[in-house]
Amino acid sequence: MASQAAHTKKHKVAVIGSGNWGTTIAKVIAESVVENPDLFEPEIQMWMFEEEVSIPKDSKHYSSSSELSSKPQKLTHLTNTLHENIKYLPNIAIPKNIIANPDLSSTVKDATILIFNLPHQFISRICSDLQGKIVPYARGISCIKGVSVSDAGCELFSESIGSKLGIYCGALSGANIATEVALEKFSETTVAYDPPEMDSRANSRSASPSSRGKADVSIPDGQRATLAPVPKELPPLTHGNIKKLFHRPYFHVRLVHDVAGVSLGGALKNIVALAAGFVDGLGWGDNAKAAVMRVGMLEQVKFGKQFFGGSVRTETFTEESCGVADMITSCSGGRNFRCAKMSVVEGVAIGEIEERELNGQKLQGTSTAYEVNSFLKAQGCEKEYPLFTAVYEILEGKRKPEEIPRLIERGDEEQRRKDGKARL
Amino acid sequence: MASQAAHTKKHKVAVIGSGNWGTTIAKVIAESVVENPDLFEPEIQMWMFEEEVSIPKDSKHYSSSSELSSKPQKLTHLTNTLHENIKYLPNIAIPKNIIANPDLSSTVKDATILIFNLPHQFISRICSDLQGKIVPYARGISCIKGVSVSDAGCELFSESIGSKLGIYCGALSGANIATEVALEKFSETTVAYDPPEMDSRANSRSASPSSRGKADVSIPDGQRATLAPVPKELPPLTHGNIKKLFHRPYFHVRLVHDVAGVSLGGALKNIVALAAGFVDGLGWGDNAKAAVMRVGMLEQVKFGKQFFGGSVRTETFTEESCGVADMITSCSGGRNFRCAKMSVVEGVAIGEIEERELNGQKLQGTSTAYEVNSFLKAQGCEKEYPLFTAVYEILEGKRKPEEIPRLIERGDEEQRRKDGKARL
Repeated sequence: MASQAAHTKKHKVAVIGSGNWGTTIAKVIAESVVENPDLFEPEIQMWMFEEEVSIPKDSKHYSSSSELSSKPQKLTHLTNTLHENIKYLPNIAIPKNIIANPDLSSTVKDATILIFNLPHQFISRICSDLQGKIVPYARGISCIKGVSVSDAGCELFSESIGSKLGIYCGALSGANIATEVALEKFSETTVAYDPPEMDSRANSRSASPSSRGKADVSIPDGQRATLAPVPKELPPLTHGNIKKLFHRPYFHVRLVHDVAGVSLGGALKNIVALAAGFVDGLGWGDNAKAAVMRVGMLEQVKFGKQFFGGSVRTETFTEESCGVADMITSCSGGRNFRCAKMSVVEGVAIGEIEERELNGQKLQGTSTAYEVNSFLKAQGCEKEYPLFTAVYEILEGKRKPEEIPRLIERGDEEQRRKDGKARL
Repeated sequence: MASQAAHTKKHKVAVIGSGNWGTTIAKVIAESVVENPDLFEPEIQMWMFEEEVSIPKDSKHYSSSSELSSKPQKLTHLTNTLHENIKYLPNIAIPKNIIANPDLSSTVKDATILIFNLPHQFISRICSDLQGKIVPYARGISCIKGVSVSDAGCELFSESIGSKLGIYCGALSGANIATEVALEKFSETTVAYDPPEMDSRANSRSASPSSRGKADVSIPDGQRATLAPVPKELPPLTHGNIKKLFHRPYFHVRLVHDVAGVSLGGALKNIVALAAGFVDGLGWGDNAKAAVMRVGMLEQVKFGKQFFGGSVRTETFTEESCGVADMITSCSGGRNFRCAKMSVVEGVAIGEIEERELNGQKLQGTSTAYEVNSFLKAQGCEKEYPLFTAVYEILEGKRKPEEIPRLIERGDEEQRRKDGKARL
């Protein structure tokens, strides 16, 4: 660690969001910073939306004689006193160096690394509130799954955050069911981090050679010039150092450069999970399910390369946790898969299943399938994505799940015709 | 099809083997040849090991008054009369253009395409029996899963067949549970076919540009010169024409050039399935299982590239049915997965589970794990394959399944040290 000694300051990490996944990631980071005192400040500020809650009677913290248990308390106070988020991550102890903070400004004060982990519908408002309150050279990592897709285009959440705040923002995604990670059951994740080259001028070790010359997807071109370099007093944010912030014995991290690929995997897999549920509902067995997953994974790759350009890499989808592993998990027992399967087994529309099983909540897969279809239609390339299109048409009642193999086959033929030669 | 008209002869296809998978593939091919009469002769000879069987009383073919049902009959006679393989693929009608034949010589007489589909332990004897009985320009496709691994080296079954018979032999493998394919439930498969360039001199359309300059893995160098070209009178065996031999609406085929990759996927996935069963048995959930599958898939790629050279492609494992899809199927409910899981849940050695669940039969995964470990030890690179090695050590009782994450992590560090730089 001799090379770090030259840096007189350490990174201060703040977590924005404290739901199930936000609190889990804060726990992971709070453990890591203690093990890497040469790189990181030991305290993790975690922004928490304030609410009043009562300790449930089945909680180990409940005691009829205690003051804390007698009436509703502020969730931040309970979290900082009990070292547990009793509402969103109950029964799991979190490290004492996590400080739940209801005030956004003081949460991010002097923070050089901002971890975004909140429901996507709050991104816009929180970023407005953050403007002018963060240090200009802060770097972000978005742990928010999904992308924003409309007829007009696709935008990554890391892009929205980066451009609203004028900072660089990477992304974290993987086969990570929050509670399982919180319970320290083994899993892996993928962190994409690829700031523009200016960092490498400020800190010679901060950018890996392979990131050079690549398009930066998170900062619109016009803003790049204004991006502040990480000061020399701070350790450089190399892939190695970022890995140290997240890697645990039970949570293995791989770093990549492909922010778009990492973000897309977590969104598009939900469409594939619906398709897998449909064929499983038909009783077609594991061969058919694996075939649909394979075809869906390659449509993810195609989508990424077609609409996010050369920086998207096939391997992000086929070799990383954020791609193939997350897809496997989602097609094993996730709720998109389960609801799609039920709809076929019971012969009812998926809307009915959503209503019954999810208390009227909508599945992510159905909304993503509609948004992606609308976007593909606007681009005139619906037919090049036969599985995504089949899922949309099945949801619309225009096709039956039994038609999936024929639709995939026809899509292949279409593609070959388009390629103008036999593509095998 | 104008371009095929120039060819005055058609390919004659013979299937060698008529078990569960052999009969299923014969059914697939028998359907295809009828739909492609310009390329293939309509009759499929299928070699069947002769045995005497009685029609079971629960068969629809059983009738107490019928002569066929009254006493044991030859299986070939029953198959050709009932158009069903009542012993190995019961209750599934097979096309009438399949002729079960107990005589190997007449099965392969004039056959230009030989489909090998029999238990691997019979390859050597059958190939000896075939010597001198096949046409010299015949081409083979092996549907036999697995590879032969020993301290001395790894040999693909397609290689053994090719070199024993002096013909070129490709391979077929995929996420294909035989009975599901026979029932026409949707699945995909991968066919690897990449004969040496001489074919392209004999038939200008037979070799794709991408196969040029590649090492041929199925014919030892010394024998290449003696390989007979496919006569001009026959349609060329392009990827497109081979696809027509196997592709069905319920059985989608993709052609590749990587024979070693296709063969290795079907063998090494069984080790991964044991690992997936171990972590699932610990109750670690779907994240952990997907992580182990991802790590295992990349060890397959590494093994292929390290020991089978430049012709092995990553995509064969990460994008094709023979790779990722077959692995997903095997880690979902295959018997390697199930028995490994049981052994952890019950806390007993896997040998006990094998004895109880498989009537003393051995799992393919355990024998492959031992063979591969012995080979890796002999090569001095056990540590570069932390998951394969962990599975072997767990089988040996030297490690516990709980250690898998740490062993994978240590393997990563080992690799980075070996690479001499931070490999992220």
